[in-house]
Amino acid sequence: MTKYVYMFSEGNASMRNLLGGKGANLAEMTGLGLPVPRGFTITTEACTRYYEDNETIAQEIEAEIFETLAKAEDLIGKKFGDPNDPYLVSVRSGSRASMPGMMDTILNLGLNDTVVEGLAKLTGNPRFAYDSYRRFIAMFGDVVMEVEKSLFEEELDAVKEERGAKLDTDLDADAMKEVVKRYKALYARVKGEDFPQDPREQLMEAVKAVFRSWNNERAIVYRRMNDIPGSWGTAVNVQEMVYGNMGNTSGTGVAFTRNPSTGENKLYGEFLMNAQGEDVVAGIRTPQTIDQLKEVMPEVYEQFIQIAETLEKHYRDMQDMEFTIERGKLFMLQTRNGKRTAAAALKVAVDLVEEGMISKEEALLKIDPKQLDALLHPTFVPAALKAAKSIAKGLPASPGAATGRVYFDAESATVASERGEKVILVRVETSPEDIQGMNVSQGILTGRGGMTSHAAVVARGMGKCCVSGCSELSIREKDGYFTTEDGTRFNEGDWISLDGTTGLIYAGAVETQDASLSGDFDTIMQWSDETRTLKIRTNADTVSDAAMAVKLGAEGIGLCRTEHMFFEADRIFAFRQMIVAKTVEARRAALAKLLPMQKEDFIGLFETMQGFPVTIRFLDPPLHEFLPHEDAEINKLAAELKISSDDLKTLINDLHELNPMMGHRGCRLAVTYPEIAEMQTRAVIEAAIEVNKKGNNVIPEIMIPLICDVQELKFVKNIVVKTAEQILAENNVKMEYHVGTMIEIPRAALTADEIAREADFFSFGTNDLTQMTYGLSRDDAGKILDAYYQNKIFESDPTARLDLIGVGKLMKIASQDGRSVKPDLKLGICGEHGGDPSSIAYCHELGFNYVSCSPFRVPIARLAAAQAAIADSENLGQK
Amino acid sequence: MTKYVYMFSEGNASMRNLLGGKGANLAEMTGLGLPVPRGFTITTEACTRYYEDNETIAQEIEAEIFETLAKAEDLIGKKFGDPNDPYLVSVRSGSRASMPGMMDTILNLGLNDTVVEGLAKLTGNPRFAYDSYRRFIAMFGDVVMEVEKSLFEEELDAVKEERGAKLDTDLDADAMKEVVKRYKALYARVKGEDFPQDPREQLMEAVKAVFRSWNNERAIVYRRMNDIPGSWGTAVNVQEMVYGNMGNTSGTGVAFTRNPSTGENKLYGEFLMNAQGEDVVAGIRTPQTIDQLKEVMPEVYEQFIQIAETLEKHYRDMQDMEFTIERGKLFMLQTRNGKRTAAAALKVAVDLVEEGMISKEEALLKIDPKQLDALLHPTFVPAALKAAKSIAKGLPASPGAATGRVYFDAESATVASERGEKVILVRVETSPEDIQGMNVSQGILTGRGGMTSHAAVVARGMGKCCVSGCSELSIREKDGYFTTEDGTRFNEGDWISLDGTTGLIYAGAVETQDASLSGDFDTIMQWSDETRTLKIRTNADTVSDAAMAVKLGAEGIGLCRTEHMFFEADRIFAFRQMIVAKTVEARRAALAKLLPMQKEDFIGLFETMQGFPVTIRFLDPPLHEFLPHEDAEINKLAAELKISSDDLKTLINDLHELNPMMGHRGCRLAVTYPEIAEMQTRAVIEAAIEVNKKGNNVIPEIMIPLICDVQELKFVKNIVVKTAEQILAENNVKMEYHVGTMIEIPRAALTADEIAREADFFSFGTNDLTQMTYGLSRDDAGKILDAYYQNKIFESDPTARLDLIGVGKLMKIASQDGRSVKPDLKLGICGEHGGDPSSIAYCHELGFNYVSCSPFRVPIARLAAAQAAIADSENLGQK
Repeated sequence: MTKYVYMFSEGNASMRNLLGGKGANLAEMTGLGLPVPRGFTITTEACTRYYEDNETIAQEIEAEIFETLAKAEDLIGKKFGDPNDPYLVSVRSGSRASMPGMMDTILNLGLNDTVVEGLAKLTGNPRFAYDSYRRFIAMFGDVVMEVEKSLFEEELDAVKEERGAKLDTDLDADAMKEVVKRYKALYARVKGEDFPQDPREQLMEAVKAVFRSWNNERAIVYRRMNDIPGSWGTAVNVQEMVYGNMGNTSGTGVAFTRNPSTGENKLYGEFLMNAQGEDVVAGIRTPQTIDQLKEVMPEVYEQFIQIAETLEKHYRDMQDMEFTIERGKLFMLQTRNGKRTAAAALKVAVDLVEEGMISKEEALLKIDPKQLDALLHPTFVPAALKAAKSIAKGLPASPGAATGRVYFDAESATVASERGEKVILVRVETSPEDIQGMNVSQGILTGRGGMTSHAAVVARGMGKCCVSGCSELSIREKDGYFTTEDGTRFNEGDWISLDGTTGLIYAGAVETQDASLSGDFDTIMQWSDETRTLKIRTNADTVSDAAMAVKLGAEGIGLCRTEHMFFEADRIFAFRQMIVAKTVEARRAALAKLLPMQKEDFIGLFETMQGFPVTIRFLDPPLHEFLPHEDAEINKLAAELKISSDDLKTLINDLHELNPMMGHRGCRLAVTYPEIAEMQTRAVIEAAIEVNKKGNNVIPEIMIPLICDVQELKFVKNIVVKTAEQILAENNVKMEYHVGTMIEIPRAALTADEIAREADFFSFGTNDLTQMTYGLSRDDAGKILDAYYQNKIFESDPTARLDLIGVGKLMKIASQDGRSVKPDLKLGICGEHGGDPSSIAYCHELGFNYVSCSPFRVPIARLAAAQAAIADSENLGQK
Repeated sequence: MTKYVYMFSEGNASMRNLLGGKGANLAEMTGLGLPVPRGFTITTEACTRYYEDNETIAQEIEAEIFETLAKAEDLIGKKFGDPNDPYLVSVRSGSRASMPGMMDTILNLGLNDTVVEGLAKLTGNPRFAYDSYRRFIAMFGDVVMEVEKSLFEEELDAVKEERGAKLDTDLDADAMKEVVKRYKALYARVKGEDFPQDPREQLMEAVKAVFRSWNNERAIVYRRMNDIPGSWGTAVNVQEMVYGNMGNTSGTGVAFTRNPSTGENKLYGEFLMNAQGEDVVAGIRTPQTIDQLKEVMPEVYEQFIQIAETLEKHYRDMQDMEFTIERGKLFMLQTRNGKRTAAAALKVAVDLVEEGMISKEEALLKIDPKQLDALLHPTFVPAALKAAKSIAKGLPASPGAATGRVYFDAESATVASERGEKVILVRVETSPEDIQGMNVSQGILTGRGGMTSHAAVVARGMGKCCVSGCSELSIREKDGYFTTEDGTRFNEGDWISLDGTTGLIYAGAVETQDASLSGDFDTIMQWSDETRTLKIRTNADTVSDAAMAVKLGAEGIGLCRTEHMFFEADRIFAFRQMIVAKTVEARRAALAKLLPMQKEDFIGLFETMQGFPVTIRFLDPPLHEFLPHEDAEINKLAAELKISSDDLKTLINDLHELNPMMGHRGCRLAVTYPEIAEMQTRAVIEAAIEVNKKGNNVIPEIMIPLICDVQELKFVKNIVVKTAEQILAENNVKMEYHVGTMIEIPRAALTADEIAREADFFSFGTNDLTQMTYGLSRDDAGKILDAYYQNKIFESDPTARLDLIGVGKLMKIASQDGRSVKPDLKLGICGEHGGDPSSIAYCHELGFNYVSCSPFRVPIARLAAAQAAIADSENLGQK
């Protein structure tokens, strides 16, 4: 039979999945002989069972709870509900992953009208007893029975006013009795029944409330943001109450074994005498620093120092501890690995290795790769941020902080930037036409589109701050303003500030500070590089992106999107001439103009990448993305192109597609217009020849997008090889080059054995692959995702994170089938997921050669790849 | 070493893949001791090798050809190029599948300036010799060396004019010599070299020409239309010439052992004395019927009758034979299973069984299921068709013949139909709004869209003639006319006729005749039903479709698309009210109006289906498909809906999606608007209850579309079950019902093990599954397919036929994984492919329970399912 309830003495730290983080650590501390208030934990499995049983607690579990309660009573020598010496408890949630403040807590449980009297007698402190009771009634009423908290506050305020009291502490025992009376009356009025006097009933209701709180709105949102599965459930910890508010020899506090902001190896924390935890939080009295405890209670301080050291050594990590002193006696209420800033994470990890406490591998595993992001981008100056006024919140699409004047189209943004202004580009949504405007902006703000919308993807690629999908704003691009929900209007030229890490938008200019990387960062990166087997490449289309990526440790370009180059002002015209060309000759003439420019681009990239491999993807997007869609712009362009507006409109109309993502794009462009592929091949090969003349050894990799059938690849590869061989012959040069393909269409993955015969490498384009595997367009998903979250169908945006089950299965099929015919087939990933630690672990598992991600994610990928390699060798060890 | 050349005496009929159909049958007849002109066959593998070797014939193959030629010379006792008794040959193509007229033939090869003189002497007929030579020069020039045929004809005409000859036969030997002279001069002028005199060179060039002709334009198109792989290649038959034009005891003819039009068991054919094959084709002289040969040459006739009987018995099928009589001696030039009309196919198959020649299974295998289509639809009266003028050609999207007046929008079509006119609906492309107009039309013609466009799919569903994607026409819907390529204009109200089987469009009204089904049809269907294991269901949304399908043998509805019901005039308004509803209450109010209508629909379907299972798919298309997009219509609708035009426009704009096929549709609608699913469940369950009250036993099957994750199915199923149970409780009834899902998104197939836990059945929606697996939208594919065909990347539209390699792999994964967790999981297919014989065979192989197809394809599916079962048991037998 499943065991659902564990005494603290029955558990340990390894039972985190079952007991939750708090419960496991309370058990571990109990095992270490530390002073922990006694109690027990109801497991996460009981929570799961609660939901399976339609939100009821099974008879057998209830019985087990009360059996364990009886054991605890024996151990403590007190009885639940005994007025003479009552056993009072706290009931707290505690899940596998830390979710601070997301779920519910009930203190002082076990009090009722008779027990409170006993407590008053026992402590000789009726005010304390009734204060505890009224706090319990309010907490139970609010958390368990859903009686509005503010109603209790109103009653309290009324009593304070009647008695002329300013603070709660001004109320005496008698007043507290009055508050209790009114609270009970309020409870009975709202609920239609009396406040429960049976402590056992109180307990069961409280346990249920904690289970319920697992699925409250804020817990669900927190889980979605932190990728915590809803299936985990929470444990419930039932623990003897200890009181920090029993007079001047009592107190409560929080401390870290090291500084969580800087990582400095020095105890860090604060405490308040004669107070309970919630008083510290309320912030009415200013807490003292932990050092001052030495003077207040030297013995307790010494004991605490000892315990802190013991815990850090025991857990081999910086600890975050909660403690209470009850009438001079120290109790440990919690310990856990402390949350820390990115900088602190690096310093603590490096220091622990230097102190000989952990190995390098353990150090690497201690750092959340995603945290590194914060170190790589500008942030707001904390003081300035404190003063700033948040006006709206969108999605944190690309991290960093940015401040500038708002502009509503790419052109005015560019003009403003040219006259030296800092610019924030604000758009309903962005399209490839906006690239130039995005490039000159400090940050990008959009009204529509999710974490994987065009704006978000491009901004991340550029390492630029972006807040996307801010539906709170009403953006009127054409009229040059936006309004917030409260109607405040921001016009073109007004200052705003964006926090791409939180999604918050602020009025005015908030001061930012640049990113700075410490020596610890280099140390961790060096250790990562020694450990990992995966190569890390970058997705880069420009020399500046490529240079940044190399600086951040990239070992090649995994994806150079050639189309981005065509949007630049001096090229788009020739490109458009190419599109409107009615004959192959006219098309070739336009392409001939683009050739030298594209060749220059590649020369720049090859030189910047210093001999690292460079994978160049041929033209991918549908051609209509390069043409305007507004009448005025069409007329203007038609005049420039010297064709009639009607002709141009007909062409644009002909290019219109019902589902452009599954239409005329990718290699399909090379099939219909082979001359484009010829030009691009020429640009790549000629650039490589030129760079190699200077003594380099560039081996260009040409990548054909959107292959769904081996015959397509054969056809396009044939164009590439024919053109390349011709150029090599013209130049009398021998040079290695590779031709490979994206795997981004399900059928390509399913027929990988055929495709591998023609491909030198596979690069998984998991953005498109995910969309097609799900049949879900990321541009349109926004409309349904809310309902999917609310109904717990999806826990997070399926296009934002690599789906290991479905998409992952296709990747596995493709990797295995591909390598089955070509064992040395090079495998990589170049979708957005290439920079995501969970994807990186999966790619490592599948035996990939490299992952490729945007420049600013390269350090993350380096660390994540190292972690994957460590996990892998640990698994091997276990086998 | 591979053997590339076979003497006829070395082969037999089973070697068709290697020797081609003609070669294998010539070998078989040789083996039977029949009088076949001697020769040899160069294999299809030599053709494949020719293409692998960049269109050259390998040394070893050339050597083998001449070794075999030498053997043939020994056998015949004549020598290639010997002027005294020359060995002259024909060189003919012959592939695995019959491709009549698609590839090239060269006769009289071996003639040159000296051999022609020898032939004149030998035959004592110089005119014959020079006529043969000039024919050879023209044929070789045209077919092998690409000298325009018309240039030769001009020379011939010139000589005829100079000599005052009307017919070729008016030219004497001398004139023929002159023609030869001029032909040779022409050849030298155009090619810049003399006509080759070396018979061996002639032979090798001719062989190459035949190989090349495998990939000529018309052969490629023919293969695409008939699903013949380009990889098969053609064989080449080199055979001694025999002459039907050596005087009045010579002749040539063609005959069938039975009547290929009716199937009647009576020799059928014709012949011409003193003629070569091409003369029969030219039609200058009228051939005699085969019976008349009895009078002309009784002994030859008797011998031929014997041979025909022998061949039919040997091949156990109706034969199509070619023969030549050379100076009283009969030669068999070809035999093959005769092509026949659908009616004849049925009669021959049934007769052969009755005659005891073949088994029922063999009879079923003899009929091409696709041929049945022709029996089920109206056709043009042949005489009327002969007189009709074809004005354009589109894609043969849905078979049958139709005639009517053209209308350019659904509304005028409906109005015209209501006043009794026969209507052809002509649109650039159709959308769901046009359903009503399509329904009242005789046929549908579209300017855009392929074989799987909306128009094509819906028309096939309705069993209505449709020609789609006719890009030759310039259709101006708003101006009410279209023009053909030559500028002819057809206005609203003008008569045209459509042939949906050929794609041809005719001016004016061409008389049609109704379909008629024979007793043989019933016999074949009955045998099919006894043999097959797959159930055949139909896709039907209306009572009339369902009734038709039952008549044609359907055993249930596999797909009832509920959205089609909403487009009807009396419903669309309530449906639109539902869409514009801003609150759940308003939406429910609109749905409440739809409920009784939808319930009536289901009652009708349940009653019509007489207890057969009915699978009802819940609302699938994106909501914007139900709203107008033109300003005028929007304004009108806004007024009707009593909302502002601006509001309606905003809503339509909000509903706009970049890739609607991967957007807010299918079960995603049920997640965002659960009340729709509730209403549809209510309609289904209440209808079933009502019908069952009358003593029926309907077990409705509710099908949830577009599932990509098991959680979605769980959520929607929960709504269905909750609603259904409530209704059953309300009515105090117990009733079985099933809830299953479409598998139409790749991820659903990949996670089928999870999904199967929640599903009573899987129905593969291979239309969408194919599009997403290929990443190719069928609505947009038209723009690229031409280039894909030209470059031999695709041989046919990948969305038109089930792709067994890629999509098939997903189906296999899903079937196996689904059944692994639920062994009795019901599997079916309801995409368009459900009526395609190759898909049906695959579904049988995967162990499906049923296939579902449009009503008119039900007989095809019944036969195809029987064939699959027979093939399966044969395979079993072989194992």
